[in-house]
Amino acid sequence: MFESAELGHKIPKSEYKKEEPALREELLNVQLELNESSSFPVIILVGGLDGAGRGATVNLLNEWMDPRFIQTHGMGDPTDEELDRPMMWRFWRALPPKGKIGVFLGSWYTWPILNRAYGRTNDADLEQSMGRAIKLEKMLVNEGALVIKFWFHLSREEQKKRLQSLEKDPLTRWKVTKRDWKHFKNYDKFREVHEKVIRQTSTAEAPWLIIEGSDARYRNLTVGKLILTAIRERLDRDAQPSPEILSPPLMPSIDNVNVLKTLDMTQSLTKEEYREKLIKYQRKLNLLIRDPKFKYTSVIAVFEGNDAAGKGGAIRRITGALDARGYQVIPIAAPTEEEREQPYLWRFWRHLPRKGRVTIFDRSWYGRVLVERVEQFCSEADWMRAYNEINEFELQITRHRMVVVKFWLAITQEEQLERFHTREQTGFKRFKITEEDWRNRKKWEQYELAVTDMVDRTSTDYAPWTLIEANDKYFARIKVLKTLCTAIEAKLKDLYEEGVDYLEKPKKKK
Amino acid sequence: MFESAELGHKIPKSEYKKEEPALREELLNVQLELNESSSFPVIILVGGLDGAGRGATVNLLNEWMDPRFIQTHGMGDPTDEELDRPMMWRFWRALPPKGKIGVFLGSWYTWPILNRAYGRTNDADLEQSMGRAIKLEKMLVNEGALVIKFWFHLSREEQKKRLQSLEKDPLTRWKVTKRDWKHFKNYDKFREVHEKVIRQTSTAEAPWLIIEGSDARYRNLTVGKLILTAIRERLDRDAQPSPEILSPPLMPSIDNVNVLKTLDMTQSLTKEEYREKLIKYQRKLNLLIRDPKFKYTSVIAVFEGNDAAGKGGAIRRITGALDARGYQVIPIAAPTEEEREQPYLWRFWRHLPRKGRVTIFDRSWYGRVLVERVEQFCSEADWMRAYNEINEFELQITRHRMVVVKFWLAITQEEQLERFHTREQTGFKRFKITEEDWRNRKKWEQYELAVTDMVDRTSTDYAPWTLIEANDKYFARIKVLKTLCTAIEAKLKDLYEEGVDYLEKPKKKK
Repeated sequence: MFESAELGHKIPKSEYKKEEPALREELLNVQLELNESSSFPVIILVGGLDGAGRGATVNLLNEWMDPRFIQTHGMGDPTDEELDRPMMWRFWRALPPKGKIGVFLGSWYTWPILNRAYGRTNDADLEQSMGRAIKLEKMLVNEGALVIKFWFHLSREEQKKRLQSLEKDPLTRWKVTKRDWKHFKNYDKFREVHEKVIRQTSTAEAPWLIIEGSDARYRNLTVGKLILTAIRERLDRDAQPSPEILSPPLMPSIDNVNVLKTLDMTQSLTKEEYREKLIKYQRKLNLLIRDPKFKYTSVIAVFEGNDAAGKGGAIRRITGALDARGYQVIPIAAPTEEEREQPYLWRFWRHLPRKGRVTIFDRSWYGRVLVERVEQFCSEADWMRAYNEINEFELQITRHRMVVVKFWLAITQEEQLERFHTREQTGFKRFKITEEDWRNRKKWEQYELAVTDMVDRTSTDYAPWTLIEANDKYFARIKVLKTLCTAIEAKLKDLYEEGVDYLEKPKKKK
Repeated sequence: MFESAELGHKIPKSEYKKEEPALREELLNVQLELNESSSFPVIILVGGLDGAGRGATVNLLNEWMDPRFIQTHGMGDPTDEELDRPMMWRFWRALPPKGKIGVFLGSWYTWPILNRAYGRTNDADLEQSMGRAIKLEKMLVNEGALVIKFWFHLSREEQKKRLQSLEKDPLTRWKVTKRDWKHFKNYDKFREVHEKVIRQTSTAEAPWLIIEGSDARYRNLTVGKLILTAIRERLDRDAQPSPEILSPPLMPSIDNVNVLKTLDMTQSLTKEEYREKLIKYQRKLNLLIRDPKFKYTSVIAVFEGNDAAGKGGAIRRITGALDARGYQVIPIAAPTEEEREQPYLWRFWRHLPRKGRVTIFDRSWYGRVLVERVEQFCSEADWMRAYNEINEFELQITRHRMVVVKFWLAITQEEQLERFHTREQTGFKRFKITEEDWRNRKKWEQYELAVTDMVDRTSTDYAPWTLIEANDKYFARIKVLKTLCTAIEAKLKDLYEEGVDYLEKPKKKK
């Protein structure tokens, strides 16, 4: 794996002096062109051994290029706001928008490698982490990003020499820490883990580029040329029309039976039953959220449903039971300009709650496989891959001990028509009914197919869909509240069994 | 001050039941109208005594209104990311965009009041804090926000009763903390401070509305009606054309002498002098930033200047001396959609660096009094008040121990013409020259007036402007580096004298 990176590559000074000015000019050119076109973001990961010149190379890139359009993220210890969310949150918030370059010193590889090398995890854990890294990068590439991954390598002898020479110079002494020497003592173990990681995660869309780190001139020219070529090729390719990727078509089940059609839409509650149960479950919800263990989890509730199915009313019956400081309702409309410069899921990642909080999404990331699919706002390939990406996203959230509940509020076509008419006639509901609602209604069958596909492909054991029979508002609201309570209760039970208090000692700040 | 709020206001249940549904419907209506129009944000501050029903009222508002368009911020202890910035940063990041309502439980009044009541500050400190609060609110209102400030009051007897009755009920017991009782013991002291605060900060644009807190029905109806009326009136007023506020005109000094014309534009360095000094000051800068005390401060460097004055080149000579993980260059172009929904300074607040970091603004908030003034992108009243707002902004930053350096890079008209021509002829500089540059050039005198006004009105002892004679690039770059080094050096000296290590012990997490 590292054979070519232990050959002692070197570039003589004279050659470097000759090549460097042209390379810099070309890099600057390509960077400005990228910024002008604003067509894709460039994500550069910099990994490798201590002393192999990662930091120096990154500084050089920043010196060579236009600092307005490149940003470096040194991913050190996470802040408390970051610790409250899944590990990937800090990377999502740092992703460069289209037209810009983001350099990550330390990435989603850093911690899995460290943990494996020091035996805190096993091979299966590492493989799982790498599987997630692959999925993430695949998604980024599918979203248009150019992902360039550099790995800076040194042989054992070379690493020792480098660390010693850095330590000798008073100007660079600070760069060598005790941790570096500790890592060096475990050179063989690290090398083994690095090999595994590089092997598993060198994919067609984002291969690792291994750079021998001992000679600065060789390193700099190689990295500069690779970046230049990658961006240049991509800019040229984008100028060409690209063939669309075709997926096998999805179609309704041939016997016309689906999960929506098997719902018993006659279920209802009397006003008295409703009142009694509303008080019961709101009280229960309130108590669950004030449970001392709740501060170790958080809740994400997703509401999707037919137009006029009563999402807003159901949401208000939840928030009515909560302290206003502890929740947030996020209405999802068209993405903003900044959101359009980022991968699809970015605008949902940014709203993930801190621990101990509740976030309710009124419509959600499922727009991709519902309205965007039906209205053809994105390509078939885009919404087809979304199922996978969404499952992965929700897995990360739930692994971070968050509770995810997803509701589809279903009403019949007849019930919808009646509600549309009522809305048109009622003063303060006039905002709720638009031309678009009527247009959507004409595509009832297409939406039904999209919903059943969505449920089939994204109802997972860790984040299942709950279908709500919503022809009767009372019944629907109570079923929502009850489902939510059950999910939180189960999570709290887990937390008690885990003894989470002992696991998560308050961390001291440095 | 509190006379009317100690009368034992009460609303009988029957009246409440009659009025509440209509009020709710109207509130919902007005809220939807606000959201549709997206014309201004509503900022509601909720202050007052413990047990006076602040939390309950806020929860009720959230229950009554559409939770998608209202958000409540419980401003408890700051996070570590917040502690790294000036106190106001956490409020800026929570401001509602146009069309939305933001409720703040705990605000910029909370800490100054607590500190004064417990004697940690004196009257002068309090008055200073209140002065800043007034300025902030004035700015918000000028930017179009509707600011509504509620103060929930109770007499001594009533507060005691309320705390006791909350404690008796097992459902509300958790609401009463030891801190509440500690505050209660200091009732008189708090009352005195509250009076002072309310007196000083009840301004025409954002008066305090004092609510007696003992009767929930009275409280709820009053608050609901006040919010309803305020938003309704504002929506109606906005439908009318408003007269523009006129400021006295600014004009060039009649003897045609100004700060720019007195610069000695012939200053220059030879290539050798430049090389030698560049190494000297880059090295110095690098060492200053690696000083152990630097982690208690941060640097904000602002670059403004004539087109083609060499801002980019000067910035690169700074970043070339820094570790890429420790700085960020923010190029300021037209605001994004999300930024346009916020007050003018919002997009700069969001980029403030954490402690120990450097942020360089390539163009800045001074756009308001330069290009926006000259091109009439904003009204005269808007840019006239900007001088004050900017001074206040920079004061807050520097009070947080940040270093602010501001550079105006000046070139002569002849020099600019020459550079424009060169740029047009040089390959990789072609992006740098646009039609706009030529248009701006025709307004040279207007820009000159704007610059001299800017320097006169915003050069403060805590954040002075440095004018850079930039006809010679070498001279300009060295003067920039030197000025920056001097400013950081002075700040570090202050920090050593302050003994900041002893002041800022690492805080333990709860």
